[in-house]
Amino acid sequence: MIFSNLVVKKDEPIYLQIEKHIKQGIKNGELKKHSKLPSTREVSKFLNISRNSVISAYEELESMGIIITKRGIGTFVLIEGENENYEYNVDYIERINAYGDTLKKFDIVKSELPYKKGMISFKSISPESHLFNLDDFKRSFLDAWAYEGANLLNYGYAKGYKPLIDYFLEYMKEKQINTINKDILITNGFTEAFDIVISSLTNKGDTIICEEPTHNTALKIMKAYGLNIVQVKMDKEGLNIKSLEEALSNHNPKFGYLIPSYNNPTGIVTKTERRKEIYKLFRKFSVPIIEDGFNEELLYTSSPIDPIASLCGSGNGVIYIGSLSKILFPGLRIGWILADDKLVDILESVKRGKNIHSSFLDQSAFYYYLKSGAFNRYVKNVRKYYRDKYNLVVNLVEKYIPYEYITGEGGLHIFVKLKNNLDARKLLDLCYKDNVLFMPGDIFYENMQNTSKFITGNDTFRIGFGRVTDEDIEKGIKIIGKNIRLLTKA
Amino acid sequence: MIFSNLVVKKDEPIYLQIEKHIKQGIKNGELKKHSKLPSTREVSKFLNISRNSVISAYEELESMGIIITKRGIGTFVLIEGENENYEYNVDYIERINAYGDTLKKFDIVKSELPYKKGMISFKSISPESHLFNLDDFKRSFLDAWAYEGANLLNYGYAKGYKPLIDYFLEYMKEKQINTINKDILITNGFTEAFDIVISSLTNKGDTIICEEPTHNTALKIMKAYGLNIVQVKMDKEGLNIKSLEEALSNHNPKFGYLIPSYNNPTGIVTKTERRKEIYKLFRKFSVPIIEDGFNEELLYTSSPIDPIASLCGSGNGVIYIGSLSKILFPGLRIGWILADDKLVDILESVKRGKNIHSSFLDQSAFYYYLKSGAFNRYVKNVRKYYRDKYNLVVNLVEKYIPYEYITGEGGLHIFVKLKNNLDARKLLDLCYKDNVLFMPGDIFYENMQNTSKFITGNDTFRIGFGRVTDEDIEKGIKIIGKNIRLLTKA
Repeated sequence: MIFSNLVVKKDEPIYLQIEKHIKQGIKNGELKKHSKLPSTREVSKFLNISRNSVISAYEELESMGIIITKRGIGTFVLIEGENENYEYNVDYIERINAYGDTLKKFDIVKSELPYKKGMISFKSISPESHLFNLDDFKRSFLDAWAYEGANLLNYGYAKGYKPLIDYFLEYMKEKQINTINKDILITNGFTEAFDIVISSLTNKGDTIICEEPTHNTALKIMKAYGLNIVQVKMDKEGLNIKSLEEALSNHNPKFGYLIPSYNNPTGIVTKTERRKEIYKLFRKFSVPIIEDGFNEELLYTSSPIDPIASLCGSGNGVIYIGSLSKILFPGLRIGWILADDKLVDILESVKRGKNIHSSFLDQSAFYYYLKSGAFNRYVKNVRKYYRDKYNLVVNLVEKYIPYEYITGEGGLHIFVKLKNNLDARKLLDLCYKDNVLFMPGDIFYENMQNTSKFITGNDTFRIGFGRVTDEDIEKGIKIIGKNIRLLTKA
Repeated sequence: MIFSNLVVKKDEPIYLQIEKHIKQGIKNGELKKHSKLPSTREVSKFLNISRNSVISAYEELESMGIIITKRGIGTFVLIEGENENYEYNVDYIERINAYGDTLKKFDIVKSELPYKKGMISFKSISPESHLFNLDDFKRSFLDAWAYEGANLLNYGYAKGYKPLIDYFLEYMKEKQINTINKDILITNGFTEAFDIVISSLTNKGDTIICEEPTHNTALKIMKAYGLNIVQVKMDKEGLNIKSLEEALSNHNPKFGYLIPSYNNPTGIVTKTERRKEIYKLFRKFSVPIIEDGFNEELLYTSSPIDPIASLCGSGNGVIYIGSLSKILFPGLRIGWILADDKLVDILESVKRGKNIHSSFLDQSAFYYYLKSGAFNRYVKNVRKYYRDKYNLVVNLVEKYIPYEYITGEGGLHIFVKLKNNLDARKLLDLCYKDNVLFMPGDIFYENMQNTSKFITGNDTFRIGFGRVTDEDIEKGIKIIGKNIRLLTKA
């Protein structure tokens, strides 16, 4: 506050003292050009003087062109101090390290074509907001508030909100996971859970085995930490067992990262038998698995399938990352890590070092939401909704798009490999002109944006349909089909 | 779900099929010892069979000692499969990297003496929960809900909730900061803001200059990234200018990290003149400053003082980290980074790589809370409350504790240097037996837990008083005084 060092004297008109004080502040650099002055009301209150004196001073200064008052916005300094330039500049961009550079370079929100109003977008795999049962959530918030009150607003615990931890432990048990000697850490969604595990348990140059293709955010994080990513080919049942065994024996990997429930982007659901084969191979090589339970709750083309973590019994070989918020309330950012309890104890300290803890208000409201049964009602409801959309999409793609294969057993997306190695990015450029957007498949392959000429996945793309109306789905897929014909002719 | 691969046949009693299926599941390792079976109701629903068949099967298995039903808890497997051990174990602790190790080692929640019920604790510098104006916050939540609804629960933007960003920009302007060519990133509190800046802009071995003593969480994070920490002595006015100039010219630092508003732990408030001297030195060496605006809003022993960032005009030399939630709603974890807009653009990608974004529900509720004027009312109210407590603490310390000096101009804590190099940890051990806790000062010094014999700060401690009743303050400080006399005699 510019007036904090002004002692009002009795022997001089107050408005003059204020005027001089402001002029001096500008001169010595305390008041910068464009900076905002406190309002006349604030000054009069702060100095305990009449407001009229302040108004007179401001009017005088304004008439001299030193300050300007914009109605309803405030009063601003118009000129620069003469005697001293306080500023200095640093080139931060040049100082960004490899970690920051990589996260920037592979930030697809910035590098991919942006959604514009009115477009038909198959780019996102977010859930449809209008399906959220808002009244249930509001009630849960009010329940949390009534039970916990001020506690939710003061510091909580890095591990998470105890009732929610217990709820998720029970939830894991229901999925046949043995939780003895295991524990849970609540995180800000999958992304933070993965970041915590990777940043604490790997070193630059370590190798991670994962599916090809796989979740682009996981790829991005592994790259940012300088890891060596080995992608293993998938067939329609999941990871190819022969390729996996080769990779495990050739690369001495630190971890496997798997999305057996709904591979992103292919939507392939790995069934129990294949899960067992995969699991046994990792066990054979004593390589721990990071299992991403992505959209597990949505499974609707087959009966529930237990996570790979359920195969490990009281062993600790699998670190399971869960996140209901991929289908429900992504805005709340709630996920969890289930792992060996001694490991969770350390990851808890890591979480504390990253951001102390996740919002206790959100955790508590989410807990009361789950506990009330609202989540189960919600899942039942959206399963049907998304299944219908899924069927529509598959039918239309089969009809209008010349594909080599389509994968995806539901979820909120399917994955298409185009015929004749058609370049999905060229296709996207055409579709974009017709206001249709989708996610090119190359971003799910480690060699994306490589300088090498051969880019895997360049003839693939992902269609996310959770938030697209049936009408737009039909319209959009027809437009994609039309542009394929255009490209093929050319 | 264990029954997902059971096809019910017509030519065999159903209860027998279920019994066999469970036995087989146990044998082949699908059902582990201690794992929970689905309830009879769930099984009957899932297989679309009568519940009585399931009950009969479960009863049979129970009579054979294969499973056990615990009333109100569930049914569990009692025995182990014979033919195959699916488990494997990994030594994660041995795999934790230097980053994780450091965050664990310096996690004071785990390493320092814990609070136990009934103790008088001066350890925490959290605000007092009962001062939170809960009704105002509830109203803000409902406002946010009414205006934004489902939007708050779906994916948001990494940079933050736009109205809150705009609010903080305005707030920065009021503190005389020139926001042209600057931008704001919303973070999960100060800790995440600092983590984002440090993890993106430094490399192992870089030097950071900071105050001695300084915030232990910042020290911990810098250590975790392998930085070289140079602490510069403070006098009662803030950083010692001569020592600072020496450090800047000898160490070629990458950044300065400063808490001019209320140094933690000393509580020293750096006044405008000293701020300018400090700022000019950093400018002279072109070293950017990370300014921590810690508890700036609480200043009550003097008039408001503008942040160092306000001295930089349209230059980008200062990165300002703000967090109202140190005094208000720490549980919500909301803070921000104000910096060069090109830098914020990259830090936004880093934020997305760490956890996508901060909770939009919290950001929106917080925004409506600030906008309503409730925050200003709250600050006015708590300032008086904490000032009274501060005066009480200072009076009692002066009376009962033989100190070399006391620092702290308010906030929620003061800092005491004991006479005759009395060991604060020995003092703490005695006080702990009397159920009194405080924070030993050595954790705020970089050489804490060094093997070197000379440990700076070992004769200091911090008294946090925000959550201690006046009665307990008096009782607690008397006990500390009594134990000092005991130690001095010995």
